[in-house]
Amino acid sequence: MTDDKLDRSRRRVLTHAAGLGAAVSMTAAQARPMPESWTTPGATFSNYGMPEDNGPIRWISADPSVPGEGVSWTPLHDLEGTLVPNGLHFERHHAGIPALDATSWRLELDGLLERPLAFDFDAIQRFPRRSRIAFIECGGNSNALWRPNPAQAPVGWLHGLLSSAEWTGVPLSLLLAEAGVRPEARWLIAEGLDASGMRVSIPLDALPENSMLALFQNGEPLRAAQGWPARLVLPGLEGVVQVKWLGRLTLADKPALSRFDTSAYSDLTRDGKIERFTRTMGVKSVITSPTVGREVPEGFVEVSGLAWSGAGRIARVEVSLDGGKRWSDASLDGPVLRHALTRFRLPWRRDELSNDVVIASRATDEAGRVQPTRAGLLGVYTHETYYHYNAICGLRVDRAGFVEHVHV
Amino acid sequence: MTDDKLDRSRRRVLTHAAGLGAAVSMTAAQARPMPESWTTPGATFSNYGMPEDNGPIRWISADPSVPGEGVSWTPLHDLEGTLVPNGLHFERHHAGIPALDATSWRLELDGLLERPLAFDFDAIQRFPRRSRIAFIECGGNSNALWRPNPAQAPVGWLHGLLSSAEWTGVPLSLLLAEAGVRPEARWLIAEGLDASGMRVSIPLDALPENSMLALFQNGEPLRAAQGWPARLVLPGLEGVVQVKWLGRLTLADKPALSRFDTSAYSDLTRDGKIERFTRTMGVKSVITSPTVGREVPEGFVEVSGLAWSGAGRIARVEVSLDGGKRWSDASLDGPVLRHALTRFRLPWRRDELSNDVVIASRATDEAGRVQPTRAGLLGVYTHETYYHYNAICGLRVDRAGFVEHVHV
Repeated sequence: MTDDKLDRSRRRVLTHAAGLGAAVSMTAAQARPMPESWTTPGATFSNYGMPEDNGPIRWISADPSVPGEGVSWTPLHDLEGTLVPNGLHFERHHAGIPALDATSWRLELDGLLERPLAFDFDAIQRFPRRSRIAFIECGGNSNALWRPNPAQAPVGWLHGLLSSAEWTGVPLSLLLAEAGVRPEARWLIAEGLDASGMRVSIPLDALPENSMLALFQNGEPLRAAQGWPARLVLPGLEGVVQVKWLGRLTLADKPALSRFDTSAYSDLTRDGKIERFTRTMGVKSVITSPTVGREVPEGFVEVSGLAWSGAGRIARVEVSLDGGKRWSDASLDGPVLRHALTRFRLPWRRDELSNDVVIASRATDEAGRVQPTRAGLLGVYTHETYYHYNAICGLRVDRAGFVEHVHV
Repeated sequence: MTDDKLDRSRRRVLTHAAGLGAAVSMTAAQARPMPESWTTPGATFSNYGMPEDNGPIRWISADPSVPGEGVSWTPLHDLEGTLVPNGLHFERHHAGIPALDATSWRLELDGLLERPLAFDFDAIQRFPRRSRIAFIECGGNSNALWRPNPAQAPVGWLHGLLSSAEWTGVPLSLLLAEAGVRPEARWLIAEGLDASGMRVSIPLDALPENSMLALFQNGEPLRAAQGWPARLVLPGLEGVVQVKWLGRLTLADKPALSRFDTSAYSDLTRDGKIERFTRTMGVKSVITSPTVGREVPEGFVEVSGLAWSGAGRIARVEVSLDGGKRWSDASLDGPVLRHALTRFRLPWRRDELSNDVVIASRATDEAGRVQPTRAGLLGVYTHETYYHYNAICGLRVDRAGFVEHVHV
């Protein structure tokens, strides 16, 4: 939709917004008195700015019996746009944030290589760099929805193991070319320096062309919590392979079969098979507004959310207001980028006397993959599956504006 | 350049990087002992993450005799990519950061309108939104370079009144359409709620089509220091019109002629004229690495920097290694977006015995505008000019790797 058409469509929805509380008519007589802030010098400068005390925060789900085991969720219901500030990027740690130092850190490249190499902190900083925006989603995101009863929580506490940033670092292809990958190599095994025994295997033919060793996130050096001094960023693949605190890359002819390769991040199908190494994320969308826990007002409401795909660009997002019977194309905030989150929006008008409405979103990616229905997903995988939930989600808005999750 | 070609060109430069200290050859016998971090549980989760204590900070230049008057500079020499974290976004305050509150804040639309309107905090939150990335540059950025002697400072303390973010808010066109702009209106006058008397006039025909009332910056709600609850974002125009703490928009048939319209942000030409209301920024680039104050090592060096234009997209960035005689095309980190910062890179090899090298960058935008030489700029404007410096800058790297600014 062109900007102009979009504006006209939005204006149609907004007409007489004033009468519905979305604006206040003003006459000269009602004009504002001189604001106090005009006569009071304001607060001063800071070296590093912080948000206000009442700003959005991450919710932490951690297991107190296992130090550093848990997650912190990105508050998607409080955010807008497609990027996430570094302080709100979701974290999934298996053994906390290690204390590393620049003098002893090394990245080793070994295994099936012509020239095994190691790089220290200064060496890795000198390599050529490239920047690109990419989402990271934990393979376990949204997993509460495998259960029969839909969880009731705001979008961030249910789908918020999902964030997005501009990453800058060394192209992985360049590092591998320096070391010379031997032809018999089939797997990349990445090892972290935290205390979780982090070791994951990625098929070489699943590596995205824009894979990198990230050194910067949203412009600033990686923070300790995000993997300093270097993390693997493999756009479109599941979170666990975006190894933080990277210490070693091994080229091999078979996978490591670590616990992150086998018991975790694999899926159980209805015909009794285990799917392993399904590293590329599916096509998915979630509605961020309306959300559970926030009453929906009458009148104009912008239905808004995020869509993404491990395969690349989002081609289309549709929104249904009747539980999935009829669908309308949402507008996408451009430019739509490969492996980035894409913000979609659909204007809606909630009327005073409308019945319950069930809102749902459905994404399609450039590879033609369509976000599955829950029935479709559960036709393939059992309820005991834990990872890679990407089905269409429903939100019922009742006549009072109360919102709850429903399976559609 | 395709990714593959780029990789090959980079590899040529890197060949035998090991011999120049950029990598350490490794044999199995040299392999790392078990890292201590493997046996020590790491640090725990946080609600809002912070960078490390030794991370990049803004440098503050403030006038202690005038409360809240000054700037804080984005440390471009410590950053990478194209986006700037909210805590490091440059700030230019004329009277500090006002303490506003959501209950009393109002945005008034008045003047030559069919329906003067006012919106309170809740009303403005209900409007349709759109997101886009845009740079903001202060009109006074780089102004030390109008002087005859080139200033010696790292790039951020000289050119760092420049930042970039993803902004989300209400399209200005939508607000204006709600109120109905009368045909005789020619100017938009924007008024801030801080104590500086902020009032600026923008010709309606200079308004970019993607102008917005921003409510969110890089995903999270605007911070107080960045204009909460609402700031004007007019992509491509100079910083002063991106009015923070917005309180009023007035449509008028003539400008307000405030001090921000007249004595400030206007330019003195050699033939004695004053150019006013030159709101659209020029085409410009700066090198962020190498930079003054940091020694350049021998061997492979990536020359890197940022380019931008008020007219839209950057079409081309060239880098010279001989003070501007010969130029080579730098690679641009894609996607290149309208009104965003664009990161450029050029591989370079500094040899042990090379003579002094003068590096410079030159940007061209999609409108065909080419970044001027200093001589070209000073052919039009006098040394007494203070704003809108966008000339090509030179960096001399001497045989010892020492860097200084030179006028080229």
